[in-house]
Amino acid sequence: MTATVQTFELGDFALDGGVRLPAAKLAYVTYGTLNAARDNVIVFPTWYVGTHADVEWLIGDGKPVDSARYFVIVPQMFGNGLSSSPSNTPAPYDRARFPAITIQDNVRAQHRLVTEKFGITRIQLVIGGSMGAFQAYQWGLAYPDLVERIAPCCGAARVSRHCYVFLEGPRSALLADPAYAGGDYTSPPVAGLKALGRVWAGWALSQEFYRDELYKRMGFDDVESFLVNFWEAFWLRCDANDLLSQLNTWQTADISKTHGYDGDLKKALGAIKAKAIMSPGAKDMYFPPEDMAWEVAQMPNAELRPIPGPWGHFSEVGIDPACNEFLGNSVRMLLAR
Amino acid sequence: MTATVQTFELGDFALDGGVRLPAAKLAYVTYGTLNAARDNVIVFPTWYVGTHADVEWLIGDGKPVDSARYFVIVPQMFGNGLSSSPSNTPAPYDRARFPAITIQDNVRAQHRLVTEKFGITRIQLVIGGSMGAFQAYQWGLAYPDLVERIAPCCGAARVSRHCYVFLEGPRSALLADPAYAGGDYTSPPVAGLKALGRVWAGWALSQEFYRDELYKRMGFDDVESFLVNFWEAFWLRCDANDLLSQLNTWQTADISKTHGYDGDLKKALGAIKAKAIMSPGAKDMYFPPEDMAWEVAQMPNAELRPIPGPWGHFSEVGIDPACNEFLGNSVRMLLAR
Repeated sequence: MTATVQTFELGDFALDGGVRLPAAKLAYVTYGTLNAARDNVIVFPTWYVGTHADVEWLIGDGKPVDSARYFVIVPQMFGNGLSSSPSNTPAPYDRARFPAITIQDNVRAQHRLVTEKFGITRIQLVIGGSMGAFQAYQWGLAYPDLVERIAPCCGAARVSRHCYVFLEGPRSALLADPAYAGGDYTSPPVAGLKALGRVWAGWALSQEFYRDELYKRMGFDDVESFLVNFWEAFWLRCDANDLLSQLNTWQTADISKTHGYDGDLKKALGAIKAKAIMSPGAKDMYFPPEDMAWEVAQMPNAELRPIPGPWGHFSEVGIDPACNEFLGNSVRMLLAR
Repeated sequence: MTATVQTFELGDFALDGGVRLPAAKLAYVTYGTLNAARDNVIVFPTWYVGTHADVEWLIGDGKPVDSARYFVIVPQMFGNGLSSSPSNTPAPYDRARFPAITIQDNVRAQHRLVTEKFGITRIQLVIGGSMGAFQAYQWGLAYPDLVERIAPCCGAARVSRHCYVFLEGPRSALLADPAYAGGDYTSPPVAGLKALGRVWAGWALSQEFYRDELYKRMGFDDVESFLVNFWEAFWLRCDANDLLSQLNTWQTADISKTHGYDGDLKKALGAIKAKAIMSPGAKDMYFPPEDMAWEVAQMPNAELRPIPGPWGHFSEVGIDPACNEFLGNSVRMLLAR
């Protein structure tokens, strides 16, 4: 795909944490054509350290997120290096001085893009995986009259305590490397980034994935090659401040912090009237399916469709054909409702 | 309990890795009295960074490991700071120069203690949890005519690929701290040890444990207190070289590396004729119960009795009364066979 990254200027953007971020930018990509009624819209927020490129596997003519029929907007999450991020923001909010960002901040900025830039009257679907799922729930909660459907995948409406603790692992591994230097590193904290990758490797994929050597299907001959050439290599491409900014957004993610809900997650979930199909990975260790099942029980129009198989948190990243087909069918089913 | 740590001198001890460790020492503790036939014996090897003190909760008059009836020997695993370890071995094998140790090395040393020191004719039970479980299987495989029963808990006969990858996380987090200095640190690598603790915290206990705030039952008010006062504090008490030595033993653990089995785990498990009750933690994330179920299916006299509940790998450490009672009953059942 030949997507062009565009930028929506948010101006001075008031964040939940109290900071007004000057000249804030929301990067985005679109696919397909907006119809005259401006109501054939799918919003597809990005996930942790991801961009539009990571979700394009679901988007295209005739694909589940069908750009022949829908106008698809992929807004880039703050901190991903394309929207305002530690790595691209000038002083005094550069690097580790970049302010804390919430899921609500992201969705509020996206709502401005959708309404101010495009004048959209109806969103047929907000779909998102992992951290994108937080944003899908938040869209459903904050803009119930705009959002017809949501499809959270391998995610949650609130970070669980266990998920928070899991994330303390990679975060602490990175910060154990003094080369990080409080964010003012002169060269990347290589040892810390590699360690972070090795910590993450056990979490993202299931015990069964490793038992059955499924990394071979990803092109890696053995565990060590997978660790070095996938896990370490991936994180070495990331900016440490950017990834820590998004990690903070993740560790504080909670749709019930939205004004009017006072931390009452049951109440917040109950207020999401959008039709929903929820797609946990059957073996996801940091967003376990039982958490999403509990959420579904609190929501008036939600159905649980766990993605079977051993791909854990990677059930929705577009690698495994069986996962892709299952999730694609869930999306088609939801759009047909 | 007022256990006294004693030492069995192994002399120059030939290790699987090819090194002869000079003046090797096997520390141990005993409980109860050896009978005249020298056959009322239970061997209870220690687990990762553990000592006899950690397993004493199961041992005592009238306890499942009944020291009124049995002579209980707790041999300390190499690298735990009491038996030969990086922290107590002189040059040239001090610190990170301490040689690699296998599960087979440990059990071979323990067999010498049991036979040479005590002249034991029959072992009624070898019980061990986590890394102690590797040793229980190995006892059953290597000394079938001596060992009547084995009780591996929250462990495996071979480290799984996933378990190996999990362990790469804490290992890498520690090594990301340059204060480790290749093992020749002048003061402990505090940042690395703390990071290791935070990495481990998400693995040892289940999602449900955190969901239900069970750390409160362990005396910690909230997640951060649990992370600082349990997880970081625990690892700050450990010697970094010792814990890395035992981690290497763990990451290479495989009973099928025993002479005559050539890596054939099915064959090795099939050769364990001891009566066995196998006790995985129902929610153990690094020794998942399905792996132990597969092992049971390869063994002629084994039964699976998963420890129910949300305590994950901590199902056998003596914290939760329900887990303790369940496991205690399994031990009594096995000893009655």
